[in-house]
Amino acid sequence: MERASEKAGMTPGSLLFVGEKRLDEAVVRRITYTSDWVREFEFSAANDAFPFESAPAITWLDVIGLHETPNIEAVGSALGIHPLVLEDILHTSQRPKVDDYGDYLYVVLKGLTFDSEAHEFGSQQLSLIIGWGFVVSFREGDNGAFLPLLERLRAGRGRIRTYGSDYLGYALLDVVIDSYFHVLEQMGEVLEDCEEALVGHPDRDVLEQVYRLQRDAVSLRRHVWPLREAVAGLQRAESGVLSGDVQVFIRDLYDHTLRIFDTIETYREMTALLLELYLSSSNNRMTEVMKTLTIIATIFIPLTFIVGVYGMNFANMPELHWDWGYFGVLGLMLGIAFCMLWYFRRKHWL
Amino acid sequence: MERASEKAGMTPGSLLFVGEKRLDEAVVRRITYTSDWVREFEFSAANDAFPFESAPAITWLDVIGLHETPNIEAVGSALGIHPLVLEDILHTSQRPKVDDYGDYLYVVLKGLTFDSEAHEFGSQQLSLIIGWGFVVSFREGDNGAFLPLLERLRAGRGRIRTYGSDYLGYALLDVVIDSYFHVLEQMGEVLEDCEEALVGHPDRDVLEQVYRLQRDAVSLRRHVWPLREAVAGLQRAESGVLSGDVQVFIRDLYDHTLRIFDTIETYREMTALLLELYLSSSNNRMTEVMKTLTIIATIFIPLTFIVGVYGMNFANMPELHWDWGYFGVLGLMLGIAFCMLWYFRRKHWL
Amino acid sequence: MERASEKAGMTPGSLLFVGEKRLDEAVVRRITYTSDWVREFEFSAANDAFPFESAPAITWLDVIGLHETPNIEAVGSALGIHPLVLEDILHTSQRPKVDDYGDYLYVVLKGLTFDSEAHEFGSQQLSLIIGWGFVVSFREGDNGAFLPLLERLRAGRGRIRTYGSDYLGYALLDVVIDSYFHVLEQMGEVLEDCEEALVGHPDRDVLEQVYRLQRDAVSLRRHVWPLREAVAGLQRAESGVLSGDVQVFIRDLYDHTLRIFDTIETYREMTALLLELYLSSSNNRMTEVMKTLTIIATIFIPLTFIVGVYGMNFANMPELHWDWGYFGVLGLMLGIAFCMLWYFRRKHWL
Amino acid sequence: MERASEKAGMTPGSLLFVGEKRLDEAVVRRITYTSDWVREFEFSAANDAFPFESAPAITWLDVIGLHETPNIEAVGSALGIHPLVLEDILHTSQRPKVDDYGDYLYVVLKGLTFDSEAHEFGSQQLSLIIGWGFVVSFREGDNGAFLPLLERLRAGRGRIRTYGSDYLGYALLDVVIDSYFHVLEQMGEVLEDCEEALVGHPDRDVLEQVYRLQRDAVSLRRHVWPLREAVAGLQRAESGVLSGDVQVFIRDLYDHTLRIFDTIETYREMTALLLELYLSSSNNRMTEVMKTLTIIATIFIPLTFIVGVYGMNFANMPELHWDWGYFGVLGLMLGIAFCMLWYFRRKHWL
Amino acid sequence: MERASEKAGMTPGSLLFVGEKRLDEAVVRRITYTSDWVREFEFSAANDAFPFESAPAITWLDVIGLHETPNIEAVGSALGIHPLVLEDILHTSQRPKVDDYGDYLYVVLKGLTFDSEAHEFGSQQLSLIIGWGFVVSFREGDNGAFLPLLERLRAGRGRIRTYGSDYLGYALLDVVIDSYFHVLEQMGEVLEDCEEALVGHPDRDVLEQVYRLQRDAVSLRRHVWPLREAVAGLQRAESGVLSGDVQVFIRDLYDHTLRIFDTIETYREMTALLLELYLSSSNNRMTEVMKTLTIIATIFIPLTFIVGVYGMNFANMPELHWDWGYFGVLGLMLGIAFCMLWYFRRKHWL
Repeated sequence: MERASEKAGMTPGSLLFVGEKRLDEAVVRRITYTSDWVREFEFSAANDAFPFESAPAITWLDVIGLHETPNIEAVGSALGIHPLVLEDILHTSQRPKVDDYGDYLYVVLKGLTFDSEAHEFGSQQLSLIIGWGFVVSFREGDNGAFLPLLERLRAGRGRIRTYGSDYLGYALLDVVIDSYFHVLEQMGEVLEDCEEALVGHPDRDVLEQVYRLQRDAVSLRRHVWPLREAVAGLQRAESGVLSGDVQVFIRDLYDHTLRIFDTIETYREMTALLLELYLSSSNNRMTEVMKTLTIIATIFIPLTFIVGVYGMNFANMPELHWDWGYFGVLGLMLGIAFCMLWYFRRKHWL
Repeated sequence: MERASEKAGMTPGSLLFVGEKRLDEAVVRRITYTSDWVREFEFSAANDAFPFESAPAITWLDVIGLHETPNIEAVGSALGIHPLVLEDILHTSQRPKVDDYGDYLYVVLKGLTFDSEAHEFGSQQLSLIIGWGFVVSFREGDNGAFLPLLERLRAGRGRIRTYGSDYLGYALLDVVIDSYFHVLEQMGEVLEDCEEALVGHPDRDVLEQVYRLQRDAVSLRRHVWPLREAVAGLQRAESGVLSGDVQVFIRDLYDHTLRIFDTIETYREMTALLLELYLSSSNNRMTEVMKTLTIIATIFIPLTFIVGVYGMNFANMPELHWDWGYFGVLGLMLGIAFCMLWYFRRKHWL
Repeated sequence: MERASEKAGMTPGSLLFVGEKRLDEAVVRRITYTSDWVREFEFSAANDAFPFESAPAITWLDVIGLHETPNIEAVGSALGIHPLVLEDILHTSQRPKVDDYGDYLYVVLKGLTFDSEAHEFGSQQLSLIIGWGFVVSFREGDNGAFLPLLERLRAGRGRIRTYGSDYLGYALLDVVIDSYFHVLEQMGEVLEDCEEALVGHPDRDVLEQVYRLQRDAVSLRRHVWPLREAVAGLQRAESGVLSGDVQVFIRDLYDHTLRIFDTIETYREMTALLLELYLSSSNNRMTEVMKTLTIIATIFIPLTFIVGVYGMNFANMPELHWDWGYFGVLGLMLGIAFCMLWYFRRKHWL
Repeated sequence: MERASEKAGMTPGSLLFVGEKRLDEAVVRRITYTSDWVREFEFSAANDAFPFESAPAITWLDVIGLHETPNIEAVGSALGIHPLVLEDILHTSQRPKVDDYGDYLYVVLKGLTFDSEAHEFGSQQLSLIIGWGFVVSFREGDNGAFLPLLERLRAGRGRIRTYGSDYLGYALLDVVIDSYFHVLEQMGEVLEDCEEALVGHPDRDVLEQVYRLQRDAVSLRRHVWPLREAVAGLQRAESGVLSGDVQVFIRDLYDHTLRIFDTIETYREMTALLLELYLSSSNNRMTEVMKTLTIIATIFIPLTFIVGVYGMNFANMPELHWDWGYFGVLGLMLGIAFCMLWYFRRKHWL
Repeated sequence: MERASEKAGMTPGSLLFVGEKRLDEAVVRRITYTSDWVREFEFSAANDAFPFESAPAITWLDVIGLHETPNIEAVGSALGIHPLVLEDILHTSQRPKVDDYGDYLYVVLKGLTFDSEAHEFGSQQLSLIIGWGFVVSFREGDNGAFLPLLERLRAGRGRIRTYGSDYLGYALLDVVIDSYFHVLEQMGEVLEDCEEALVGHPDRDVLEQVYRLQRDAVSLRRHVWPLREAVAGLQRAESGVLSGDVQVFIRDLYDHTLRIFDTIETYREMTALLLELYLSSSNNRMTEVMKTLTIIATIFIPLTFIVGVYGMNFANMPELHWDWGYFGVLGLMLGIAFCMLWYFRRKHWL
């Protein structure tokens, strides 16, 4: 929760950055290309990036650093974006969604990273505006996720240079959604480790790890459930921005989100199972501890009573003066101990 | 449950205040504005507030204090409101909903406050009647939530003065829904504190706090689930009262309720997880306690038996008269103790 | 389950009373009214109640006591009711539902009562046939629930005398559904008591009470879920029996059932939470008990061992003859006890 | 699971009996009737039963014993039934369903029986083919369930002789579905016994019984859920086989399946509750046991230590020679015991 | 998770095998048949298999070994398959699905095998392209699952030679889906063994087996849920590839997937129940252990105290010198022991 409450009472659509500043200098990159050429520019203010070159050139404007609100405002006014969209771009706790504004599509979703050492995952909000002949992406910081795509653009490999701006938008979404697979694979490994550790011998550390996994799965699901809806929304978008050719790719994207969702659901159920297994295992261990105590105590407590009896100082205790008294008592106690052991074995406690 | 049963058997639509009286004096405020001017009035009886000025002037009638039923009746007869609506306004345990009466929309929802010291949250019912050129709001008391909006009206900032009464209605709803974010953020902080405390060392206080959090999440969900439906209902409202321009803002509002609902669901799952973690942790602690007892008892109980043996008063106990008897027994017992410790270490109890 | 199996193999639509006989004498009351006058009759056989007076007079036939099957048969043949409806009327374990037979609506639902002393709630089946100009209600017994409505009819207060038979039907349903609020309020109070008791100190009685509450909530939900569907079915009923004016009231009724359902769901979740809290609390108490035992035992068992050592009767035990031997051992034991206490404090067991 | 895997790799529609043989001799009964007369025949081979008499005579062919596959094949070829239907008839682990083949409806469902002594329930598959002027029923064995219906046919009571073959089909379904109520009532009684036993004192037998109930409820639900869908499918069947008159009865049938489903759901929740109650109760009992141990042990362990002290054989122990030493120690121990008891009472352990 | 992340950043539709190599030599088999003849070929490169013979001959191309990507590429270019389909074929962690490309249907699903010794199940991805006059199947390896079908093709039994390529596609799917029944039957047997073992006496091994079953059920469900959707998708496929005759068989296939899904759901609930039963049983056993300890300890601890008293060495202890002192104390202790036993019996601990 990034202090969404601070905006309470303000005019809807007012531009205020709600989130964490992730880099010092905001940067605006413009890549314009046709099937023949690619040109790249870098600006510090978004104003300088306009106007875009006309068709058939396609422009990708990559706005990095949301704390620089004038950049977002400039893009908004240059392209005629609705104020509520601009507000959403600046508000980094958006729910993934797709809004169809006729002339352009507004897509917002989260990119994921997983820090395998700290067992924590981070998320970064990506907003996309997909219009005729241009795509604008807004990011909190540059984590290098778009580099392979940029390479493909520069090299002219694949369809990316020959298809339209809708395909570029799809390609950006594809990169972000692929980042989930990476995170899920790492979580899957931790899950397997936990399972092995639990079967071996369960201790408190495993409990905390399983707990953290489940918490992460719950939290991930919160991101992925609306993501699924959002991509499904892209499929249904009536806006003409997405051509039929790209719809096939969007369907593929939707399959990916389904797979991600399935995996998260499975993780959730698995970790819940592990927690139950832990509880049962730790119950088992307690029973084992108790059995040990009970066996030792129930054998020796009666014996200790017997030796106590013959430790009494009564003047008149005939057994004490019998010659075989001591050895008789030792024998008696041995017999009692054996009876007890036999009883425990019959009860499957040994 | 505020004694809804007291109304059983009465004519539906009969006006009886069901709730808690939150302030002494009922007040009716009327704010009338166009894009050029704003005029504010304050009355003690709703009757004096009528008639409203005609278009293009827009009137916001803010009725504070529901225990003064004649005020509600006066508004109802002046504006031709259905008796069931008036009954619902007075009944403060309404489920959030939107009813479309063609000429006007009736919206009822709950504003939230969170008392961070007592860890309790309060709710206040807000009813809105959104008609052509006017909005009437009914509140149980004045908690200052609408002050920033009033400021914006007076200052003429943003769209509020230039858009119609539907936008005013939306703005009022927006203020109320934003109050949920504030409450959720505070709950989130308590949740994090609990989590930390549980991982540190779990005690009874944390249990109660987690329990209370979960109870609150369950209870909040009860408010937010129908809220979501209500705002979705606003989107689908066929009444012409809401213009297309405002529908975009309603969609934004709907996104907010989705976000609120997601967060509450996450809190519910998190607190359920915390309860499980608590159970597991407390099980762990019990095992630890039991292990300590078992180790001490299983070492010393057999030893105590041995010393008991040589405390017996039999006349014929040869060992007692051996010179090294005492030290031999001491050594034997030391050996037994070491065996036991080795056994416990092998079992990972130490 | 009231022996529904006894009807197996019989012709569908055969009239057999399945239920418990709640009163000795079956009674049939007929109230006929227009906006000008009200006339009341009481018969012991339903046959005498026909024919009804013609429009605009509206007739309410209140058939009390279902064990008198000829009465039901007489109503059925006089008004042309489908045999399956008559069978359902006599079968007191119906699921709440609305069946639209074109000429008339058949509504069946349960009225609730709560015995606050025995903490048990009872239910009574009410069947309504709503036709043009008449309403027939069938009840197992007379619990006085319809008295306030009768009063309103006699006094001519409210809309009841001026609206049609559909409004009368609605008014009867409203009375029955309001009875749920009463039950829910009483359950809510028991719930609060339980919660307080659990936080104070949990004992077996509270467990049973919480269990019973949850069982009641599960069982209530079974009644209310189809009730909700039934009232929604009334809203969608295509039969012309319900006029547009009354539909607004039906919508209000639907809101009530939603509120009832929400409350029951909340109760269910709350009681489930309470059961978990109970389990955790009782776990806590066990740990506390175990800790006490462990502390006492681990302090005194080693000490008892030591005194046992010096109780041995070996001839050669040098310490026994040292002058300060006794006091030295006492001091040693004091030291051990203090070490133990320090250890327990460090482990937060004290 | 009756070895459905054995059919893997075979041509779909190949006729192989998958199930358990329940009777030695397969029998085919043919009952042909009009409103005026009834004629009954019994054959050992289905071939002899054809052709059916023409309209208005209605024929019910009751094929008992599925292991005699030629009978099924003969029916199939004589009436032109699809091979997949014949395969399904022979495969006794079908899911309840309705398939509409235009000329005829294929309905498959399970009849239930409950062995109240062994607390086990059995199921038998019934397949129905409902066509114009005929109904064919296929059963694994004859459990007498259809006897009352046969009686009604012979006696000409009710509608059965005057309505068409669709009503006959409905009547057969009605008999089967009524068998569920019988089973549910018996389960309900077991459930109540368990509840009482649990509240009294919970032991292992009750646990197993509750477990078995819950398992049965889970398993029953597996049958009833698709049954509900199947009957709903009958309601929606576009085939003209079911006339409008019979649709009213089908709706009644649907109500019955809803009631059955509700009851099973309630049983499931109740048994889950009972398991939780059992767990809590058994926890309680353990705490009680532990408290007893703790009280006894914490009172006597310190006292035993004290008497151990004065059992030591030190030469120099001044207290031993005081005249009132013995009685002083007795008094001291009494005092300690009382302090302990007071402490336990304050902690509500006594 | 088979390293789906490695594809991040690559052009969508690029051909890279993601999975495990299951055999050394990739093989391509071509079976071409009409109702009159069957011809079989085997190639090592897919290129050699083209072109297919023209209608009415039907060709089944069985591509075994996905690591040989040129084969897949060759098929793709020869038949004009969309690049995304080829990518999906090579990616062995697909979700079961059906994609309708107009000219052909792309179906992907998992075949299951169960290793009953290791209690593990394996899955193999099968991709099918069903077009006019041909079916191409892509498999990771050859597990002999299609042998019976091949036999039927060669022998000309059943419909397979007379129906079109759509029926061949259906027959392949049918084989794969039947493999689930086999796995489920084996799981069912393990489940029954576990249940018996749990009721007998629960130990750690059973716990692990139940855990593994539940994990498998969760994991299976992940496969079967989308399988169900996929087969339902086949039913709705608007492509003309599937003729009306085959649709009846697809409906049968859908019934099978429903039955599989029901069974898995039941297994899930059953194993969850078994886990709960285990927990309760192990709780019971702990209580039994504790009771034994408590009974022994509470009987002997007080007695040991008494004998300790008379083991004290006070000079002045009058009882010691009474003639009947020793026997009196023995009698007293016997009495105390009997009182204790009576008390335990009254509490139902014995």
